[in-house]
Amino acid sequence: MTEAPGFGDLTDTVSAFVPGPRVERRGAASGPLAGLSFAVKDLYDVAGTPTTYGNPDWARTHPVAAADAPVVQALLQAGGFLRGKTKTVELAYGLTGENVWHGTPLDPAAPDRFPGGSSCGSAAAVAAGLVDFAMGSDTGGSVRIPASYCGIFGIRPSWGAVSLAGACGLGPSFDTAGWFAARASVLAQVGEVLLPEDTAPGARLGPLLKVEAAWMNALPSTVLALTDALQALEGLLGRTARVDLAPEGLATLYESFRCAQAEEAWATLGSWVAAIGPRFGPGVQERFDAARTMPPEKAAAGRAFRRVFQARMRALLAGGAVLVFPTSPAPAPKLTASLADQNAVRELTMGVSAISGLAGLCEVSIPAGRDGGAPVGLSLVAAPGRDRALLSLAARLSEATGLPG
Amino acid sequence: MTEAPGFGDLTDTVSAFVPGPRVERRGAASGPLAGLSFAVKDLYDVAGTPTTYGNPDWARTHPVAAADAPVVQALLQAGGFLRGKTKTVELAYGLTGENVWHGTPLDPAAPDRFPGGSSCGSAAAVAAGLVDFAMGSDTGGSVRIPASYCGIFGIRPSWGAVSLAGACGLGPSFDTAGWFAARASVLAQVGEVLLPEDTAPGARLGPLLKVEAAWMNALPSTVLALTDALQALEGLLGRTARVDLAPEGLATLYESFRCAQAEEAWATLGSWVAAIGPRFGPGVQERFDAARTMPPEKAAAGRAFRRVFQARMRALLAGGAVLVFPTSPAPAPKLTASLADQNAVRELTMGVSAISGLAGLCEVSIPAGRDGGAPVGLSLVAAPGRDRALLSLAARLSEATGLPG
Repeated sequence: MTEAPGFGDLTDTVSAFVPGPRVERRGAASGPLAGLSFAVKDLYDVAGTPTTYGNPDWARTHPVAAADAPVVQALLQAGGFLRGKTKTVELAYGLTGENVWHGTPLDPAAPDRFPGGSSCGSAAAVAAGLVDFAMGSDTGGSVRIPASYCGIFGIRPSWGAVSLAGACGLGPSFDTAGWFAARASVLAQVGEVLLPEDTAPGARLGPLLKVEAAWMNALPSTVLALTDALQALEGLLGRTARVDLAPEGLATLYESFRCAQAEEAWATLGSWVAAIGPRFGPGVQERFDAARTMPPEKAAAGRAFRRVFQARMRALLAGGAVLVFPTSPAPAPKLTASLADQNAVRELTMGVSAISGLAGLCEVSIPAGRDGGAPVGLSLVAAPGRDRALLSLAARLSEATGLPG
Repeated sequence: MTEAPGFGDLTDTVSAFVPGPRVERRGAASGPLAGLSFAVKDLYDVAGTPTTYGNPDWARTHPVAAADAPVVQALLQAGGFLRGKTKTVELAYGLTGENVWHGTPLDPAAPDRFPGGSSCGSAAAVAAGLVDFAMGSDTGGSVRIPASYCGIFGIRPSWGAVSLAGACGLGPSFDTAGWFAARASVLAQVGEVLLPEDTAPGARLGPLLKVEAAWMNALPSTVLALTDALQALEGLLGRTARVDLAPEGLATLYESFRCAQAEEAWATLGSWVAAIGPRFGPGVQERFDAARTMPPEKAAAGRAFRRVFQARMRALLAGGAVLVFPTSPAPAPKLTASLADQNAVRELTMGVSAISGLAGLCEVSIPAGRDGGAPVGLSLVAAPGRDRALLSLAARLSEATGLPG
């Protein structure tokens, strides 16, 4: 105890960056991202700095990064200015954005609510205007959910489209490298640097398919908040048809995702967890316990359903169709919510985010409204390999609705 | 997972009461508290209901209460209307007010900050106007700190003045039965029912002593926020003298309190903790680990210092002198603060709250200002046995400053 007050948490109002000296790196003098600043989730390697993965025991037991992750390299070479590494949920295994070791970033759009995670610091940094864009990663919603909760744009690209080399993994067959921006045009600009060409370049997207179960799953007030954006979208792509993606129910999507992904999480991180016995915050420990004890037959059933669902989604979306639904079924939970309430929200949320997660689709979340004073996002989803077209659609929609272009 | 949303946490805006069916009991038709509603922290027994002590494993392993705690009985007999049992930090062992099992109550005065604890639900219920007063308990600050954080009145009575029979204990030689109210007159009314006569009835309090180290320990902005109330107090009792209570430093007060109290906590609750292996939220587990491993010589040193300090305080305050200092050195920490920042705030806070805690003094916290938009309290402290005089002084000060009388 010192007699001099040390109330850092009371004066740093966003707290998006990992504690310790700030990592800054100026990129190339010119390039498509010149003049733009960015941050990266602290699971991407930046040469000469530790990669904490949000957990002090991880940081302690891993060497300082020897090289930049290829994504970081690409952004610097394109002229971006790296302004720091952002907080993540421990081992990216959580959706609220809580981190009891580093502190939870503030949701600048709703200070009494969770910012969403696991890419919480990246979302908060963008929402607070500290950087122009920020890299996150998305396994089961970790870019889309904080984008929705913080009122900004976020993309989970098609699985495999953007390199995750030099990045910590959680469930490799689900993990994707996504990013956030406050403006749709910036979201697309970053895509031009990081994404491969679309598989059908220049093809128009449509028709629009409203995922019935996902709309039924959302709070009525959240649905209402998204009405204007949905109408604007219909103005661009024509009236929506309704579609029933999963007669098995969203609960089956969630359960299949959870079981298949838990098996991968334990295969990826279990040996470290078992060897080190790291301390985890609330919720994270429980998820690793569940991963460790996941019955192989449940994981196998999840993988089997996933194959069926993938085939079904690719057939449905092959011609350019776009799915539309609320990114999250409600605004962010309050910071005061019990673990049980957080878990209930998690299940309802992941039943919907599992659509892209299971099938490897690309998804963009658009800040489309406010419910009870807190942001909610609208998601657009297309077949793998149509990321650039989807980013263009998001930009057109933003213009049509008066959102930041 | 159900398809129908269940976002209870998003719609219950205060969440002060323990989950489950609400315990309600109408008291006597007439009496000094007739027309007033109240709630009790869920560590007081109410016949026929479980006493959760804030922890599901405690609730599971203890019988339903067979009788009302004497304090509950007294309040009902005085005409109070019991409106429910309020949330507490698990086993009352924490100052932020967080409870991950039941959910953390909202601080109605600062929704992005902790409500303070351990009597968090009682403070929140009063601050939100759900009840006229509420019982808490205070071992190391558990009434005074939430009173300061939530912007209401709170009293920690002289040690032993109010019965804790039928209430769960944490550190019996430190535990006290305190309460909250939004109005100073109601705080005093409850005192007339619960408190014994003062040892020197009718005696005036004074002079006023400003505890130098406690003012130095506070944020400058918090000190500034308390200036008007301090001046009003000087108007009533004459100009303050400065006093140095503890040349050993507040750090010694904190450390003595922590070690002596930890030993008692383990003596009181350790056998249950060891037998059951309960699950605890973040922070609580660490504190019980520290209690379990507290070296006996450190606890003995704490107890020795306590005896010296008690004698010193009783000599200083014997003639009616009143100590004055900021109840908490800063407003409540943000809900997003890391455990490390929470612990730093805890240490700075308890260095001051240990004054009354160690010496068994009576202390009233007055909602005296706002710092950065969040409430901060001013504490008045008197010798044991002067509780009623202190409540009168608080009421006079409230009138003088235009606070709710």
